[in-house]
Amino acid sequence: MSDFAAISVPGRVADAAEGITTEELALAARNHGLPLEALRYDVTPPGLHYVLTHYDIPPGPAGAWCLTIGGLVARELTVDLEGLRSMPATTVRVTLECAGNGRALLTPRPVSQPWLVEAVGTAEWTGTPLRALLAEAGLAAEAVEVVFTGADHGVERGVEQDYQRSLPLSVAIGADPEVLVVYEMNGAPLPPQHGFPLRLIVPGWYGMAHVKWLRTITVVGAPFTGYQQRAYRFIQQPDDVGEAVTRMAPRALLIPPGFPDFMSRTRFVRPGPVRLEGRAWSGRAPVTGVEFSADGGDRWSAAELDPPDGHRWAWRRWQALWTATPGPHMLCARATDADGLTQPLEVQWNRGGFANNGIQRVPVVCVPPPSAAVLP
Amino acid sequence: MSDFAAISVPGRVADAAEGITTEELALAARNHGLPLEALRYDVTPPGLHYVLTHYDIPPGPAGAWCLTIGGLVARELTVDLEGLRSMPATTVRVTLECAGNGRALLTPRPVSQPWLVEAVGTAEWTGTPLRALLAEAGLAAEAVEVVFTGADHGVERGVEQDYQRSLPLSVAIGADPEVLVVYEMNGAPLPPQHGFPLRLIVPGWYGMAHVKWLRTITVVGAPFTGYQQRAYRFIQQPDDVGEAVTRMAPRALLIPPGFPDFMSRTRFVRPGPVRLEGRAWSGRAPVTGVEFSADGGDRWSAAELDPPDGHRWAWRRWQALWTATPGPHMLCARATDADGLTQPLEVQWNRGGFANNGIQRVPVVCVPPPSAAVLP
Repeated sequence: MSDFAAISVPGRVADAAEGITTEELALAARNHGLPLEALRYDVTPPGLHYVLTHYDIPPGPAGAWCLTIGGLVARELTVDLEGLRSMPATTVRVTLECAGNGRALLTPRPVSQPWLVEAVGTAEWTGTPLRALLAEAGLAAEAVEVVFTGADHGVERGVEQDYQRSLPLSVAIGADPEVLVVYEMNGAPLPPQHGFPLRLIVPGWYGMAHVKWLRTITVVGAPFTGYQQRAYRFIQQPDDVGEAVTRMAPRALLIPPGFPDFMSRTRFVRPGPVRLEGRAWSGRAPVTGVEFSADGGDRWSAAELDPPDGHRWAWRRWQALWTATPGPHMLCARATDADGLTQPLEVQWNRGGFANNGIQRVPVVCVPPPSAAVLP
Repeated sequence: MSDFAAISVPGRVADAAEGITTEELALAARNHGLPLEALRYDVTPPGLHYVLTHYDIPPGPAGAWCLTIGGLVARELTVDLEGLRSMPATTVRVTLECAGNGRALLTPRPVSQPWLVEAVGTAEWTGTPLRALLAEAGLAAEAVEVVFTGADHGVERGVEQDYQRSLPLSVAIGADPEVLVVYEMNGAPLPPQHGFPLRLIVPGWYGMAHVKWLRTITVVGAPFTGYQQRAYRFIQQPDDVGEAVTRMAPRALLIPPGFPDFMSRTRFVRPGPVRLEGRAWSGRAPVTGVEFSADGGDRWSAAELDPPDGHRWAWRRWQALWTATPGPHMLCARATDADGLTQPLEVQWNRGGFANNGIQRVPVVCVPPPSAAVLP
């Protein structure tokens, strides 16, 4: 590990007035969020869904890609894509959000992938239920967790690794949500950046659980303590243990109305009624309400939430009508779920910058209608 | 215009020690580059091609999308998608690069979309030759330029506008390169972020010329002076006129070898031979040579360039073998084209941050082979 120590340094928190660093920018240029106007689509078109790759997108398989299911099982299985495709398939619509969404809005800012609010997307994933594969392999009585290993390889905070995450056995074999090993996204083979040829889908959980470029599934008899399992925890100080990051906290996002200024992304609208639209989700319990505010969160009004459409693990659309009056406004929205969780006005800071579901703020200026043609 | 002045301010250059601003980060989170490992693909898979949207991605057409060809023509044409698809189609493989690629590496840094080196991609575009459409409309003798208007609407540096760019008539009706009005990318309808349902493709030119969400083509009798035509110029001071930004300068990019550190993106390789691979392109003249350096540009060696494959307007692959020795190295590559243009060691600064084809620098540390298994 000392070979990497000079380069791959521990995580840190930005100084008070420190701008975004070149390293954070390099991550922002590689990875990308959902352009917020793309919240208009029920299912996110390819290329607009958020992407985070810890290391590199691995090359596609040179020959056959085999998935191995081993460890504490009765019979180790090796299955190729044809084998998976010959098993009963399930398709589920899932909203995926990065656990680091909102990180760059925290004060002080944890220095990592600098998401604002847009690390989200929704897709239809098709694949094989994990519990069917585990049943075929036969779980040993001592099984406690299941470890998933991807083909992406790199160094993180000094630790060389293949990307690895685990799930408790109860989650891995659960029926609702049902964890899937998927080979299709929106009816087509997975794009390289979304895990071609195979990835895990864990409906309701933040993105770090959905291991991409999946190669190996290992049933183990003790809680897994690999790097990524230690990294995704809510801590205040480097040596804290903290709670694990698991399911997505409730969040509502608004499609910024009107038209933007290129550089500031501030919105302009004309006076009169403005239809507001957005999406809301929670990985914990169904969203039960969305409210919006036009004054930065002082006063809130109920938005209209689309009725449940059977896609429990996907976002739901909401709408509201706002009457714009000349001058500046700050539009906000917040979601509440059936567990009674509501997005906070004051966010809970944590050192990894995880699960910041602080309320989105969209600056809007209402300007007079154009007095004459503005274009040549 | 004064309605926008307080928000949509003139362009500026960052102060000496100013980090990346939140506004620049918001653009970096929306738009995205090509993850450099995706240089491995001849044709960039959907979602990995760079994207820059000045304003918002417009909603798809509610009804039929019609393209109007008017202005100084014998007969104004209105053609829908079916009409375009019924005309003879051309497919061309084109490498597209944003004119602002490399902007955030300039000192001082022009404050705008903060690209490093990755704003590039290659696709197969299918559509109708523009010159066929113009011939059908019949060009008037006074025709000088052709103006293209997209459906994306916003405010930029105080000016409300639909995105508009022009081409000189000689370019618009040229046979090599042939300008296309395209409706397919890689054999499928255009994705929303790449201009659905129609965009312009101008092989060899920087991205600003390839107007997306194309609605109107207008033949005009004088050089067009709209906002985007004034913005994309090489200037030193705000009031300079400068030369127009047109064709892509030569550039080579290297697939960063080995495996990365998550945060710094520094690469690690093991001692011994390392195969280097990348792509090179120029919009001015065919690439004739690529060189690489492992010491930051002091010494250069010729790389092996793939033979021409008939795709004149697309990048070409190059390869080299490098023998890594323990310690830090700085890998670089540079391209030369048939006009004799070579990427500069010292870049020419300009206020818009355009066409910075300064040499890519990839920090690599060669570490000893692992002495034991590194993974649990």
